[in-house]
Amino acid sequence: MSYVLRNALIPTASGYETTDVRIEGEQIAAIGKGLLAGAPGSVELNADNKLLLPGFVNAHTHSSELWQRGIIPPYPLELWLAQLHEYAPPDPEKVYLSALATAVETLLSGGTTVVDHLILIPGQELATVEAAVRAYREVGIRAFIGPLLQDQALPACLPGGEGGSAAYPLSTAEVLAMLEEAVQKYHRPEEGISLMVAPTGIQLCSDQLFEGCAELSQKYNLPRHAHLLETRAQQLLAQEKYGCSAVEHLERLGYLDRKTSLAHCVWLTASDIEILARAGSTVVHNPLSNLRLGSGIAPILKYRQAGVNVAFGCDGAASNDSQDLLEAIKIGTILHNVTDPDYRHWISPRESVEMASRGGAIGLGLGDKLGSLEVGKQADLVLYDLTQLSLLPRTDPIGLLVLGRPTQAVHSVWIRGKQVVADGEVTTVDVAKLRQELFRHSSWDPFRRSQQAAQLEARYRQVMGLPG
Amino acid sequence: MSYVLRNALIPTASGYETTDVRIEGEQIAAIGKGLLAGAPGSVELNADNKLLLPGFVNAHTHSSELWQRGIIPPYPLELWLAQLHEYAPPDPEKVYLSALATAVETLLSGGTTVVDHLILIPGQELATVEAAVRAYREVGIRAFIGPLLQDQALPACLPGGEGGSAAYPLSTAEVLAMLEEAVQKYHRPEEGISLMVAPTGIQLCSDQLFEGCAELSQKYNLPRHAHLLETRAQQLLAQEKYGCSAVEHLERLGYLDRKTSLAHCVWLTASDIEILARAGSTVVHNPLSNLRLGSGIAPILKYRQAGVNVAFGCDGAASNDSQDLLEAIKIGTILHNVTDPDYRHWISPRESVEMASRGGAIGLGLGDKLGSLEVGKQADLVLYDLTQLSLLPRTDPIGLLVLGRPTQAVHSVWIRGKQVVADGEVTTVDVAKLRQELFRHSSWDPFRRSQQAAQLEARYRQVMGLPG
Repeated sequence: MSYVLRNALIPTASGYETTDVRIEGEQIAAIGKGLLAGAPGSVELNADNKLLLPGFVNAHTHSSELWQRGIIPPYPLELWLAQLHEYAPPDPEKVYLSALATAVETLLSGGTTVVDHLILIPGQELATVEAAVRAYREVGIRAFIGPLLQDQALPACLPGGEGGSAAYPLSTAEVLAMLEEAVQKYHRPEEGISLMVAPTGIQLCSDQLFEGCAELSQKYNLPRHAHLLETRAQQLLAQEKYGCSAVEHLERLGYLDRKTSLAHCVWLTASDIEILARAGSTVVHNPLSNLRLGSGIAPILKYRQAGVNVAFGCDGAASNDSQDLLEAIKIGTILHNVTDPDYRHWISPRESVEMASRGGAIGLGLGDKLGSLEVGKQADLVLYDLTQLSLLPRTDPIGLLVLGRPTQAVHSVWIRGKQVVADGEVTTVDVAKLRQELFRHSSWDPFRRSQQAAQLEARYRQVMGLPG
Repeated sequence: MSYVLRNALIPTASGYETTDVRIEGEQIAAIGKGLLAGAPGSVELNADNKLLLPGFVNAHTHSSELWQRGIIPPYPLELWLAQLHEYAPPDPEKVYLSALATAVETLLSGGTTVVDHLILIPGQELATVEAAVRAYREVGIRAFIGPLLQDQALPACLPGGEGGSAAYPLSTAEVLAMLEEAVQKYHRPEEGISLMVAPTGIQLCSDQLFEGCAELSQKYNLPRHAHLLETRAQQLLAQEKYGCSAVEHLERLGYLDRKTSLAHCVWLTASDIEILARAGSTVVHNPLSNLRLGSGIAPILKYRQAGVNVAFGCDGAASNDSQDLLEAIKIGTILHNVTDPDYRHWISPRESVEMASRGGAIGLGLGDKLGSLEVGKQADLVLYDLTQLSLLPRTDPIGLLVLGRPTQAVHSVWIRGKQVVADGEVTTVDVAKLRQELFRHSSWDPFRRSQQAAQLEARYRQVMGLPG
């Protein structure tokens, strides 16, 4: 299939220009005024008063958390996690539905790629991955699925030396074998579905698990992912476990490279930042969950000054509690203005767009194939309708897209050259039916009480120095 | 006109209940299961799977800033203001259009009242007020219009002693006379349109202007409004002008009372907070503009602990850059979690809803008439469609409304008992035509260069101790 977009507004170094864009196969084939029509059967699309941008990467989420969005009370990460884990993990059918919804919300907020750090159903690990793969294939979104791995149980996540021996049902070798089987079954990058190695983070993973993941990443050329220093408790835990920072430890284990992306990175020191810059690893900024969980404000301006690549993520919907990438980009852009009085360091809307598109692609090792409007790049493209009320009056289209609150702004989306949103509607899945299914599989239940969070709370308050 | 809403979900102390609500005239007439139909001609509305809440108050905005949303670069307030002021203030026709758009975006994000700190066109002050009044009457939104007053020119806003003598075209007496004329012409609280006294703040107003406003507030029973200590520069300026804090000075001038609402309040001391609590004045929290302009994080958790009433505002659309009240509520709720490690102090979604509705009403001196679901209160009500994708799956409806990113969630709105939104569409004005008018009166102009900001910049950097 090929497309010619007529008179799209695209950003240039000195402003904007109105031009045509031709998509052929999976790629951007031509950009220029007055392009000839495509081959017979090529679709012509009037892009008057529409802004064309490369698709964004939702560079960190956990799709099945959707089932608990809106319901977990204001808690810090460690207590929040206890509550998240307590309530029955969804079955594969629910994983499928929440992956569909995550993909739809990502698409309708400018995202064309999703990185799903997928929480696995114990005993049904491969079925979990299969359900997510199925959903992303149906939607047609480009997906990177990182089965969320751990080989230690939840109590280990707090410093204080009590949790290290907590039993986890699978051995490290079993976890790695399961991951390798999933890779062999589902890793199809040429079809838009990739697997990643994705241990959850230093708080629940052994050194052997990180090393095994690095080996599988080498063997199958997989991107690497993990949480990193999301909370102060994790910073304390790293010192206790390793006698050094988590970043120093991951560097020694050989986990950091140019296709490693690390979610959060709130509690890094200046020397940690130098290590990330040297390794060429990517920070995934999840501003909304960092606020929601009280984790802190990641030092994003320092990362940028040090030359560390930064991308944006929504994080799982139980800690955000949406999958709206434009919201994450807006808050991730303006939040840092309160951390540095010198406005010359603040992030501009154009820089945000670059971080969300090319920054996201670089973090996945795809900087040469994805994330910019250039001939020969993958046609992962989003067309925004600049006549929607939320994008009016006409001022600076990218300024208003990033700093405003775009509503119903996404008009069309192409991924790998295939159109998946047209006239503001997802064309590949039935969203009305999806809403019915989400409704049917849930009930209003605002006052459940978590036992696990209550059990962990006393220890948490003691470790963090909070009054009892 | 009267309405019966059947089977609405409403919050109760212990969760939610499904019930009927009858609206008669301007008021909530009855709440209970199985209400009888209303008088002949009464409208019955099926509220199955819909959440009913009191309308929120957009407690601080500047509607005409809409014309510059998305276009002002990342600047702190003082340089941002120079740029805002430089570009020709809109004519009354544009003021009318931007007030319409502000009202529409407020309605579609749960707001039923707007507080418009209205920037006046020099020489056309009354025409400016008239244009805004006309727009708000047409939409049917409850409006409080505070003509933005000053009697000193912009250079006075920076500390450093150079700006105090800058000439302002009107004398203090002329400014006050203009305000009184506007009050006599347009203040019609019984019709939903009120005027307020609203000097911009200590940075551009003489003591005489504050005192004159307080007198007019007494004479006509008008709410009082002002900006207060939005930036560190203003904190420095207050010390320089008064030898004490701005709050101490306003208390001495007699400006603080129970119907005084103060926008921002970022740079207050512990003793300033005690003064506000004693006076019973309201803090209007504008989290998005405080981030966008790098003003800082207002100490909202401290206000709440001190018993100071807090409401939410979007602030003007050139510093936000939207008028989405649910976005302001979300960020104003979660932002403070990073300022206090004790999660027991964090704001819950139910508390946010209370702040946005009843908190807003209290700040306008209407706590007894507005802002809660009670028989006898004004019927300013919003019905949210819980079957929209952004509010699914079913978890805690208020939790997801506040912490999620609701899209197309507002189904119906009543203000003073009159329905102004039905099936997600504003029924009182033609939004498609409004979009065309906003489009027609604007052009994409991303690379304008401000002379005034450039002129002020060297002095700003010196005063704030930034490298030259």
